[in-house]
Amino acid sequence: MEIKVLKNIMSVNDQVAAKNREVLRKNHVFTINIMASPGAGKTSTVLQTIKALQGIKVGVIEGDISSTIDAETVAKEGVPVVQINTGGECHLDANMVQNALNNMSLDEINVLMIENVGNLVCPADFKLGENLKVLIASVPEGDDKPYKYPGMFTAVDAIILNKIDLLPYVKFDMASFTKAAKGINGKAEIFPISCTTGEGVTAWAKWLKKNIKNTAK
Amino acid sequence: MEIKVLKNIMSVNDQVAAKNREVLRKNHVFTINIMASPGAGKTSTVLQTIKALQGIKVGVIEGDISSTIDAETVAKEGVPVVQINTGGECHLDANMVQNALNNMSLDEINVLMIENVGNLVCPADFKLGENLKVLIASVPEGDDKPYKYPGMFTAVDAIILNKIDLLPYVKFDMASFTKAAKGINGKAEIFPISCTTGEGVTAWAKWLKKNIKNTAK
Repeated sequence: MEIKVLKNIMSVNDQVAAKNREVLRKNHVFTINIMASPGAGKTSTVLQTIKALQGIKVGVIEGDISSTIDAETVAKEGVPVVQINTGGECHLDANMVQNALNNMSLDEINVLMIENVGNLVCPADFKLGENLKVLIASVPEGDDKPYKYPGMFTAVDAIILNKIDLLPYVKFDMASFTKAAKGINGKAEIFPISCTTGEGVTAWAKWLKKNIKNTAK
Repeated sequence: MEIKVLKNIMSVNDQVAAKNREVLRKNHVFTINIMASPGAGKTSTVLQTIKALQGIKVGVIEGDISSTIDAETVAKEGVPVVQINTGGECHLDANMVQNALNNMSLDEINVLMIENVGNLVCPADFKLGENLKVLIASVPEGDDKPYKYPGMFTAVDAIILNKIDLLPYVKFDMASFTKAAKGINGKAEIFPISCTTGEGVTAWAKWLKKNIKNTAK
């Protein structure tokens, strides 16, 4: 008797993520899934990036378990934003993002920044339909995080290291962090930035623009 | 026909947690489940607490997805420690702790500090058999965290606010944080501390000693 072996069955999440990707592609929207620990500076980085992407129309999806604090911060800057409250879930999934997309005017934006729930573990496992996965690490968290959260550091296309303005006040060995991150994920570019001083934001935005351009071709 | 309604069925995790609690009680070991974001300073707080609890014998369980960095740091101080690597799981569960307890000399310690995986969401949902749940927040994470992670802030008996030495260098409104935390959890005491300068550690340790004493009665 022949035994059937089923391979490459997409999870329900991956199926919905593929649909999101298609909707976003048709609308020429380049999408970034931004992941980080709580308080690493996701919203500040989103705002700094929007400023640096001058001329490019950006929309934002804010993911939080509870509250609309981040969406209010983004809306104040005149940026179109939808807040997802997961109500306890520790990550965004493709279905939540699908619902958010249905509530956005995709024809009015070129770039979508999705701010995931603050969590360095679970969000790494869920595709949302994004073009790029970006991790924001931050200096006060310490330089050993790549060793402790390898799943997240492996999953991403770029690593932003935020809060470099705090380097004089905390123990953080930049060479050690870079070595650890590169050891786990040799392909991800690392961008040290400070959302407080603006340092490093231009280099990150330049790389992002290049990626947006290449995808649009 | 009578319909049977089953109530108060313990989850498997809660059953194992109850067993852990019983084992720890019999061995007169007071147990603390320490939860926090990645890089909030769990290990530093554990070491500072052990120093402040002078004379009380402490054992440590370190929970991480990967690596033995924290266990090595604790072992260097001559403290008995077992490392749990969850291999991807975003939280410790009672079963993992049961395995760790089987590998410790419980008769040689009075207090067990369990350092959970760095995650402000999932660990709140899993009992381990502890006497106290403690959250370590940290100043660089920002003062809005109680609103964004209400499950964690609700679950705990005490909130340590670490890294107060960084208050001059970041935006953080202490009154706003306290108001938010107290609004969500009026019972949890808040202890502002700095593991770098040692400030506030005595007050936290004093409260902890009182709890240990009351439980021993």
